[in-house]
Amino acid sequence: MPELDPFAGLAAVLGAAPVQVDPHRQARTGVPEVVYAAGKSPRLTLAAVQALLERQPLGRALISRASAEVVDALRSELEPSGATVLVAPNGGTVLAMRADATTPPLETGGVVALLTAGASDAPAADEAAWVAREMGCRIVRADDVGVAGLHRLEAPLHMLREHGADVVIVVAGMDGALPSVVSGLVDVPVIGLPTSVGYGLGGGGVAALLAMLQTCAPGLVVVNIDNGVGAGATAALIANRVAAARNAG
Amino acid sequence: MPELDPFAGLAAVLGAAPVQVDPHRQARTGVPEVVYAAGKSPRLTLAAVQALLERQPLGRALISRASAEVVDALRSELEPSGATVLVAPNGGTVLAMRADATTPPLETGGVVALLTAGASDAPAADEAAWVAREMGCRIVRADDVGVAGLHRLEAPLHMLREHGADVVIVVAGMDGALPSVVSGLVDVPVIGLPTSVGYGLGGGGVAALLAMLQTCAPGLVVVNIDNGVGAGATAALIANRVAAARNAG
Amino acid sequence: MPELDPFAGLAAVLGAAPVQVDPHRQARTGVPEVVYAAGKSPRLTLAAVQALLERQPLGRALISRASAEVVDALRSELEPSGATVLVAPNGGTVLAMRADATTPPLETGGVVALLTAGASDAPAADEAAWVAREMGCRIVRADDVGVAGLHRLEAPLHMLREHGADVVIVVAGMDGALPSVVSGLVDVPVIGLPTSVGYGLGGGGVAALLAMLQTCAPGLVVVNIDNGVGAGATAALIANRVAAARNAG
Amino acid sequence: MPELDPFAGLAAVLGAAPVQVDPHRQARTGVPEVVYAAGKSPRLTLAAVQALLERQPLGRALISRASAEVVDALRSELEPSGATVLVAPNGGTVLAMRADATTPPLETGGVVALLTAGASDAPAADEAAWVAREMGCRIVRADDVGVAGLHRLEAPLHMLREHGADVVIVVAGMDGALPSVVSGLVDVPVIGLPTSVGYGLGGGGVAALLAMLQTCAPGLVVVNIDNGVGAGATAALIANRVAAARNAG
Amino acid sequence: MPELDPFAGLAAVLGAAPVQVDPHRQARTGVPEVVYAAGKSPRLTLAAVQALLERQPLGRALISRASAEVVDALRSELEPSGATVLVAPNGGTVLAMRADATTPPLETGGVVALLTAGASDAPAADEAAWVAREMGCRIVRADDVGVAGLHRLEAPLHMLREHGADVVIVVAGMDGALPSVVSGLVDVPVIGLPTSVGYGLGGGGVAALLAMLQTCAPGLVVVNIDNGVGAGATAALIANRVAAARNAG
Amino acid sequence: MPELDPFAGLAAVLGAAPVQVDPHRQARTGVPEVVYAAGKSPRLTLAAVQALLERQPLGRALISRASAEVVDALRSELEPSGATVLVAPNGGTVLAMRADATTPPLETGGVVALLTAGASDAPAADEAAWVAREMGCRIVRADDVGVAGLHRLEAPLHMLREHGADVVIVVAGMDGALPSVVSGLVDVPVIGLPTSVGYGLGGGGVAALLAMLQTCAPGLVVVNIDNGVGAGATAALIANRVAAARNAG
Amino acid sequence: MPELDPFAGLAAVLGAAPVQVDPHRQARTGVPEVVYAAGKSPRLTLAAVQALLERQPLGRALISRASAEVVDALRSELEPSGATVLVAPNGGTVLAMRADATTPPLETGGVVALLTAGASDAPAADEAAWVAREMGCRIVRADDVGVAGLHRLEAPLHMLREHGADVVIVVAGMDGALPSVVSGLVDVPVIGLPTSVGYGLGGGGVAALLAMLQTCAPGLVVVNIDNGVGAGATAALIANRVAAARNAG
Amino acid sequence: MPELDPFAGLAAVLGAAPVQVDPHRQARTGVPEVVYAAGKSPRLTLAAVQALLERQPLGRALISRASAEVVDALRSELEPSGATVLVAPNGGTVLAMRADATTPPLETGGVVALLTAGASDAPAADEAAWVAREMGCRIVRADDVGVAGLHRLEAPLHMLREHGADVVIVVAGMDGALPSVVSGLVDVPVIGLPTSVGYGLGGGGVAALLAMLQTCAPGLVVVNIDNGVGAGATAALIANRVAAARNAG
Repeated sequence: MPELDPFAGLAAVLGAAPVQVDPHRQARTGVPEVVYAAGKSPRLTLAAVQALLERQPLGRALISRASAEVVDALRSELEPSGATVLVAPNGGTVLAMRADATTPPLETGGVVALLTAGASDAPAADEAAWVAREMGCRIVRADDVGVAGLHRLEAPLHMLREHGADVVIVVAGMDGALPSVVSGLVDVPVIGLPTSVGYGLGGGGVAALLAMLQTCAPGLVVVNIDNGVGAGATAALIANRVAAARNAG
Repeated sequence: MPELDPFAGLAAVLGAAPVQVDPHRQARTGVPEVVYAAGKSPRLTLAAVQALLERQPLGRALISRASAEVVDALRSELEPSGATVLVAPNGGTVLAMRADATTPPLETGGVVALLTAGASDAPAADEAAWVAREMGCRIVRADDVGVAGLHRLEAPLHMLREHGADVVIVVAGMDGALPSVVSGLVDVPVIGLPTSVGYGLGGGGVAALLAMLQTCAPGLVVVNIDNGVGAGATAALIANRVAAARNAG
Repeated sequence: MPELDPFAGLAAVLGAAPVQVDPHRQARTGVPEVVYAAGKSPRLTLAAVQALLERQPLGRALISRASAEVVDALRSELEPSGATVLVAPNGGTVLAMRADATTPPLETGGVVALLTAGASDAPAADEAAWVAREMGCRIVRADDVGVAGLHRLEAPLHMLREHGADVVIVVAGMDGALPSVVSGLVDVPVIGLPTSVGYGLGGGGVAALLAMLQTCAPGLVVVNIDNGVGAGATAALIANRVAAARNAG
Repeated sequence: MPELDPFAGLAAVLGAAPVQVDPHRQARTGVPEVVYAAGKSPRLTLAAVQALLERQPLGRALISRASAEVVDALRSELEPSGATVLVAPNGGTVLAMRADATTPPLETGGVVALLTAGASDAPAADEAAWVAREMGCRIVRADDVGVAGLHRLEAPLHMLREHGADVVIVVAGMDGALPSVVSGLVDVPVIGLPTSVGYGLGGGGVAALLAMLQTCAPGLVVVNIDNGVGAGATAALIANRVAAARNAG
Repeated sequence: MPELDPFAGLAAVLGAAPVQVDPHRQARTGVPEVVYAAGKSPRLTLAAVQALLERQPLGRALISRASAEVVDALRSELEPSGATVLVAPNGGTVLAMRADATTPPLETGGVVALLTAGASDAPAADEAAWVAREMGCRIVRADDVGVAGLHRLEAPLHMLREHGADVVIVVAGMDGALPSVVSGLVDVPVIGLPTSVGYGLGGGGVAALLAMLQTCAPGLVVVNIDNGVGAGATAALIANRVAAARNAG
Repeated sequence: MPELDPFAGLAAVLGAAPVQVDPHRQARTGVPEVVYAAGKSPRLTLAAVQALLERQPLGRALISRASAEVVDALRSELEPSGATVLVAPNGGTVLAMRADATTPPLETGGVVALLTAGASDAPAADEAAWVAREMGCRIVRADDVGVAGLHRLEAPLHMLREHGADVVIVVAGMDGALPSVVSGLVDVPVIGLPTSVGYGLGGGGVAALLAMLQTCAPGLVVVNIDNGVGAGATAALIANRVAAARNAG
Repeated sequence: MPELDPFAGLAAVLGAAPVQVDPHRQARTGVPEVVYAAGKSPRLTLAAVQALLERQPLGRALISRASAEVVDALRSELEPSGATVLVAPNGGTVLAMRADATTPPLETGGVVALLTAGASDAPAADEAAWVAREMGCRIVRADDVGVAGLHRLEAPLHMLREHGADVVIVVAGMDGALPSVVSGLVDVPVIGLPTSVGYGLGGGGVAALLAMLQTCAPGLVVVNIDNGVGAGATAALIANRVAAARNAG
Repeated sequence: MPELDPFAGLAAVLGAAPVQVDPHRQARTGVPEVVYAAGKSPRLTLAAVQALLERQPLGRALISRASAEVVDALRSELEPSGATVLVAPNGGTVLAMRADATTPPLETGGVVALLTAGASDAPAADEAAWVAREMGCRIVRADDVGVAGLHRLEAPLHMLREHGADVVIVVAGMDGALPSVVSGLVDVPVIGLPTSVGYGLGGGGVAALLAMLQTCAPGLVVVNIDNGVGAGATAALIANRVAAARNAG
């Protein structure tokens, strides 16, 4: 009964797949496509991951903001074929690898430092770290550095200088003060990554983001609240360009 | 014990039904009444759908934002009497048809194009498509067009020109950039339909809506976040008026 | 002393003019380029107007949000060469015409209706009217229609039906209720144009815009507060497509 | 082991009960105390209701925003002692009556009219109606009046005039246009009661409230979103003062 | 040269006057039309005032938010013909009276009380008082009552009870606490009139308005920030209905 | 297979523990470290509590915003070793004590008064009380004081004067009026603690916070919504400094 | 012609003066009344200052937010009678002293420290300093401390410890980070005073205030943006209570 | 009369100068101190500039957001001593150079590209360019690139690739779409610099900033609205680190 088909007029849908993969993105921009799972059903996420795994040269696909339900779907669908599904310690970020994905990303020599203000900032930091790692960077990281006691900042700053960090991601929620403080003490670019930690007025990362935007320390740029992918990708772009220049020497 | 009846003073309630159907709406405005299920109990939604099915000439009723619970209620109450309950692929939008509803909406000849920026924009696009379809329009649609890689826009633009689209609905969340870009490339009116995709500051569609309101491309008008009904209805009004002029020729 | 030149490193500036005119815009999108004067110095505005006047086929250039200072600059620079500078009754919108610009825009046959809720909405309505007029439309307009007394709405609705309006722009500040009311009474698309009239919470057009976005009357689309250019351009695109179909008959 | 008692220093807590009942409120202000259940545990709500039932002269207690869990607690604790627990049709508002509460509130002769814009506005309207009823008013009510089709407004306006309404509460979500429209057509005070119906920007009642605050119809006052208690109490204060003057004649 | 006339297509403008006066408003709603001068040029304001003066039975016209420039225009245009232009002590509110306007508004017997929290709240209070006075009410008023020292509240409360106030308008900026406090102490309806006094977050009257919307004292309704016209009109509607019932006795 | 290890590049993580305890904080600032549980998993919260219990001289650790799940985790992990886990009456705030923690905090002699406006404000008040108690203060407290009936304020004010309160914390949601009122009546510093009680515009504590920020009563300072830890810690710092001066006498 | 008097009905105005002075405020709350000039005309401000000067025991009156126009009015009206008008270095704050006001405020012994983050924070700091000084406190102050270079913080912290500061006011705009940093390093209460320094999102002091509300350093309380009066008054209340205890020793 | 000195208690002001210069900032962070003039009086700005000129090794000082009044003050005070005061073409940004400042900043070899979306974005772009130039970078720049016609983007992208740009600053107001579009087409880091161009909801740069924060193109970081200093400084830090690696080769 075609007269009952509500899609009868939908004759000109272009192509068949609702998910379009952009296979040349990494070549064009240096940043791999990351599947953002929050706005998608497990089925749709799985379709996107499978499409990426098939085309990505190394057979690897990053997924961000994956719920436990999505992780289960990925595992039950991908692992039987020999694929690997790795979940970050604090959840949310996932790396899927094809069975034949035995080659890790080429190490570029770029060095990305990560500092977190509090223990609750870890998930966003993980997301940034995994993206930068997929782009070939080395990660140096110090957690729960705090701003309430600035003496605790000395060791991390020493660490990032010693490892030759090309860029620093500073992850902070609540008052978002740490990135400004760090930016006034180092001579490399700093990316502020505000997190949705905190409640009340300015909670959920709003005060942290606004404070970073209002920084008195030029040399600090920001991404949106909890946007670890954006922070990690830009940091890796910076570090990789520096490393390429170093390697070209 | 009437003294216990807390409604004893409610003597003058006008009529009996809490839901008033506006049977002349489609004749008056060209837009059918759509049952908005989000703010209603399943029982109340069902009552509204049944009232519409009885009076709508073709025996069809659209429901938007129906939860799985509402869909179940509709199916268990309506299907035994031979009615049909169709649910859009991404859920939310539902079309109920009476047992004797064998005539689809009259095709007007109006053509509505739909472009979505990302795979997560599909539910709002479905809502718009189903409304425009009920108003007799042909739909041409391309999904997951993206703005990060503009080369992906060529095929959809070619498609909508080839099908003679009278109006374009561009569906986008996050940065909401696609409608402005499309509006600068076509010579038909463009309706921006922002979606609640995205998190952090400006998330939930706020940045997308604001960016569309701030467009530098005159020729772009907008509806509220996720308001597929509004986008679809206006697009169909436009396309139908054009088609009527074409048909009158 | 080149070493004192702070622009010594600015060697690669592309081209010379800070204002780039897009001469093919009207052909590509059907909408003429309008010079937005609010964010520009009189000097920069003048440069943009002159560039447009030179290239626009009919020798006409629209300017929006021109201050008295900008109008003076336009008059003193353009009128000596025989050009004409016309200012809308409520100021802000300006039409400049070259000395040889004796041909008005080709009348398309499209009909755009304009209703304003209050007398203070006139400047935004003028802006919309002048843009639509430049795009060849006929304008039918009724001012200060109000929503507090709905009986005042009858004559304007009669007028717009009699003149065969293809689309209605409803201009309203404060509570922004009129567009929803009109949209429930007509069968053509309605564009809500909120104005920055009103004070207190939701003032400056915010409540008007939000109320239009929240309309219960599908068939209403909106542009930003005071964006007469956007409303007029889209209305004319709609009316012109209808008229083209009519004329093709 | 007192040294383990973390409250050892809390010696000076004033009195014992965390809930203080204000028994003279109704005599002082004409408005009964209503137990607001949303911010309280079932246990705390029950304690407040019991305290009110004991002291309120007629043995009646109104509760607003009671969850199903709170209703269950009230029923299981109060009904065994012969008390009655009545729940409004759309839930949320509850009336508890002591076993000996056989006298309803004295009818004052005040008349409160209630109009709702849509079917989803019913719960807030119920809350207002029940409060005004407890204050002795007669209620006249019409539901789902709408603003999209103004012809539907005639019967309700006729009704409220015929019943001699002293004040009108107009309940509306989304664009909140109905109260302004009604206020321009009647000569009694109008209280706008915005409801949390609607989504997207300005959703959850924000646009409705702002539009009412921005009304062009003087004679309209508002309460907060979903604040049926406030609307009902003020309406009843107005109607009762009018009725007292009538009765004193 | 009609081809140069940019209004050539504006053939169907309905009528001639951009300002439409609603002469039956006061009869229909009990509230006189007030000319809102803030969004209008002096010329347009003058036109509206003249139109009102001609048609209003008593030859009186209220103007709100008149700038000094508007007042000058009114005086220089109206006074030569024998009209009177009175300006409220704190400016902004203006009463124009025709030369033959020798009859004041009929005293209805309604009593409106006005309390201001601080000396800066006077202009909004004046606006409310003048509107209520035009509607025939008696005004009892106490200024700078404060909330920081509640002992100062006793005399005003005594005053309003002694004068038999039918309704109280409480005017407050900054924390907006006074209306809630008053509403807990009186048994007549209270209208909160927030003013734009205060700076910083929540300044400009936002905190005052929000606090009134969040009142714990049912019986309080509000108008928008600085909306003296709305507060005065509603208060007078209430007081006049009470007075009519008294007078009918 | 190290090539599969996505952390292969994470060579330079500083130290091993994601949670860094600041053992010298109380000595340096006078405020103990409080474990904020809302942003942490039960596992992470437990780790932080155990680290604190080990190092805190008296073997005590406060936890704020602990969910029932976190409380269960604390109890099942800590109680077997003889530790005590005490939960505040309204939940959320928890005190863990080591088996050998037999010495309570040293009483400083500082006196902190706590007033709550409504019964729903109790959880935030508990949080403040427990923090101040851990810092050695005596607490005097009166609940559900209200602002709607100011006569109810006399007893609490008498109480706090009698007990020689050095500072007053006033806890209030909704309109947040009580702190301003109290601040105008006492001569000690007042800390306003807004709570997330209330709905609609300004709900969730926003109006309460803004009203406190806009207070006309100098002498009032505020903390964020529901931030009992902040209010309690500052109050105790104040009271303890006063007490130290008293004791030094 | 009394019929022309628009105030004919304003019979019951309580008293004559629109400005009510609260002569017992300082005795009752310890805080002197400060004339807030921003919302008042020069005439009204002058009236308030004169009333204060007459009644304040020492013949001194503080004025905040005085414009140059207000300062001129104060000088031209007060100085002829021998009074003194002192303006703070950065303007805005004014101290008026009667001719016979030769006794400064009694020094209490309380010590208030003031740190500013940037040079632009000086006006708000002045306001706080002058209020605390009027309340008898000693002020220790360090300007332009910054947060971008934390090494610059050492000298100020040393200073405030050496002078035995009882409380610290930290004044900061933009990112508002300094108060949190200071609060983590001292053991006295800290009052954050955000200033309206900064532009863009979170500008005008919003980010600074939110960041202080979101501080991870318990022991920090805040006042509204630019509210130097509130910060100074509370700081002095704290310091004075400590000093009273010291002096009582 | 020292008793009249309101600063009598201000004994412990640290040092004398309200402006503290941080002479080691550039060495420590690589970014020179820029004098932010918006929040300062001309006198204070001049003091800061003079202090910087004295200590900055090359005798150069950048000033941002200088008003015409500030520029005049700088010129009249500095030029007599042989100093040079250069103002950017669109005003606001100023470079002051000591008489002996004959050496420009050392060219680092870093390359910063600048694209502006519209002609109104030029002032913010100038600010960024001048800062990066002071840090030794080469600037390549293309203005008024637009997003409405994407074909106009080809030449600028070609230019920045040809000049080997190490980083791109994309300057855009209104819808802020250009940075996302560019970020999807290049493989170097992109800094989005939103400008305060645009009106209505989301105007003043808010929509532009939010859209950039919501970008679907990872690799884009942002600074606050109009913060050219921040964008230029970070871009130069990135370019200079790349250049240092290149030079070290």
